[in-house]
Amino acid sequence: MEIEESLKKYGKGIDEHLKKLFPVRDDYLSEPIWYHMDTGGKRMRPALCLIVCEALGGNPDEAVPFAAAVEILHNMFLMHDDIEDGDTMRRDKPAVWVKYGTANAINAGDYLLGRAYRSILDGNLPQGKRLRLLDIFTLTYEKTVEGQALDINWRGSTKFTIEDYLRTVELKTAYYLTCGMVGGAVIAGASDGAIDKIWELGKSMGPAFQIRDDLIDLTVGKGRGGVIGSDIKEGKPSFLYAYTLSKAGAADKERLVEIMLKPRESTSASVVDEVIKLYKKYDAINYSQRFAEGLVEKAFKAIEEIPVENKATFREIAQFMAQRTA
Amino acid sequence: MEIEESLKKYGKGIDEHLKKLFPVRDDYLSEPIWYHMDTGGKRMRPALCLIVCEALGGNPDEAVPFAAAVEILHNMFLMHDDIEDGDTMRRDKPAVWVKYGTANAINAGDYLLGRAYRSILDGNLPQGKRLRLLDIFTLTYEKTVEGQALDINWRGSTKFTIEDYLRTVELKTAYYLTCGMVGGAVIAGASDGAIDKIWELGKSMGPAFQIRDDLIDLTVGKGRGGVIGSDIKEGKPSFLYAYTLSKAGAADKERLVEIMLKPRESTSASVVDEVIKLYKKYDAINYSQRFAEGLVEKAFKAIEEIPVENKATFREIAQFMAQRTA
Repeated sequence: MEIEESLKKYGKGIDEHLKKLFPVRDDYLSEPIWYHMDTGGKRMRPALCLIVCEALGGNPDEAVPFAAAVEILHNMFLMHDDIEDGDTMRRDKPAVWVKYGTANAINAGDYLLGRAYRSILDGNLPQGKRLRLLDIFTLTYEKTVEGQALDINWRGSTKFTIEDYLRTVELKTAYYLTCGMVGGAVIAGASDGAIDKIWELGKSMGPAFQIRDDLIDLTVGKGRGGVIGSDIKEGKPSFLYAYTLSKAGAADKERLVEIMLKPRESTSASVVDEVIKLYKKYDAINYSQRFAEGLVEKAFKAIEEIPVENKATFREIAQFMAQRTA
Repeated sequence: MEIEESLKKYGKGIDEHLKKLFPVRDDYLSEPIWYHMDTGGKRMRPALCLIVCEALGGNPDEAVPFAAAVEILHNMFLMHDDIEDGDTMRRDKPAVWVKYGTANAINAGDYLLGRAYRSILDGNLPQGKRLRLLDIFTLTYEKTVEGQALDINWRGSTKFTIEDYLRTVELKTAYYLTCGMVGGAVIAGASDGAIDKIWELGKSMGPAFQIRDDLIDLTVGKGRGGVIGSDIKEGKPSFLYAYTLSKAGAADKERLVEIMLKPRESTSASVVDEVIKLYKKYDAINYSQRFAEGLVEKAFKAIEEIPVENKATFREIAQFMAQRTA
């Protein structure tokens, strides 16, 4: 698929820029940062920024500083979220806070954010565009933090609904999945109408992406050393959990919440299995798949409404995303 | 003293702006933020921004959004640093991470930073000035994080020198003590020459401020519930520690490092007293006082070189700062 080639090609340019922003050194900021950044990130979000910029007639080189900022943002959040969520593994290696301590992990994440702003500020673009990009970046940053605030405080709630899930995920996932594409469009000089539709596309695609991620946690795991059911162990409020809560009888519901509230270390594999059986009993897995498919369809609909000639690239992007995970 | 009146007057305007930026609510972001912001911060840094703006002929109203951003930055750092340093008390109340948990404290700090950028971005100033302020803010943010990285990793080091201390403190304290004044000057349209000298003033005043703070920890404590010697308990590398390390004989040096490396809970009051006696033995307290006075003199020298007519306000500010603590 052509888009995969583009992703690879553009991913490399991003890494070069990142190395200029924070050179590889053995100090207390560079070391945890590169330990984390090197661990196999796909650089998908920044590559999408460059691809969209080019597709809309812009010069992708001009988009590199913003694209790098988006990649930095992604990694900064992973670093802080792993502490907040108590996730000890990331991409099959110990998380930064486990390896370098919580203090260095908070601080390295903070530093990354500064570098992201620096990248956008120093980009070679007219003042108005730089301010617009800073605006988009700040909006995205804040919405994602708001989403994380909701997410960490839903743990073990019996009142968690599908609406709550979608609201949380739109904030936590959709903005920063989309902001690279939006930034690329701004740099290319796209109209406000086009930019609105790109946001719309992302707001369907983000939750679809996340629901797929929730499902994958039940099959191959999420890069936590092959462990299945991390979300269940950690009591993370997934789509499957929200749906099952809405459908289950009183006894099943009570048991489900009880398991979700268990500390991670006392949630055994057999208990995880019990939850998966509950999910299956209420057809949550099939329903989640169908729901995600519905969202992907919505995203494709938004693409058809983007007022630009070249819709093919967006279709390819959506196609690609619909098959991948976070 | 006139400056204290101005500080009070301007402090109020800042609080109104802060309440617009993040209304007082009972959600998972507002609650920890206002718990923290309400706890008696003096709003000194933002007030200095407005005072300098006015002193240089600018309209202080135009400086409110930047001044608020500086205050937010200050509080964001306190929130994250308390986690990183393991400080359980802040302004004589439990720190945010103790009251709301580490996850919410990291996240609330992250959110604050977003609000600071939003405040500057939405300020009613020409594009060029807004970008310049964002640049100053980002520089300050990054330098402060770099300083914190040094600070948390110096703990218990036997090789910690006065130069290390000054480098760390310039990064960690001086930039964000000064950036409000610099921003106020930019908004007033001050020359680059004036702005350089204001930075210089802050780079002497910041370390002077911090050394005084280190000294105060040995007498009245630093708002940690009346506890004396927090820095010693936590093994924080103070000016006194650096100086004593450089002067002490082998046995005293060994004992000093041994105590600094002790976990906080096993550093008793009598052990703290032992360190204070060591500091006195090597005349570290007097030396620190003299060193801080030397820095204040340097700051006054920088003021005389600021190429503006109204130097009186800067002298008052410096006078005020020389008597206060962080």
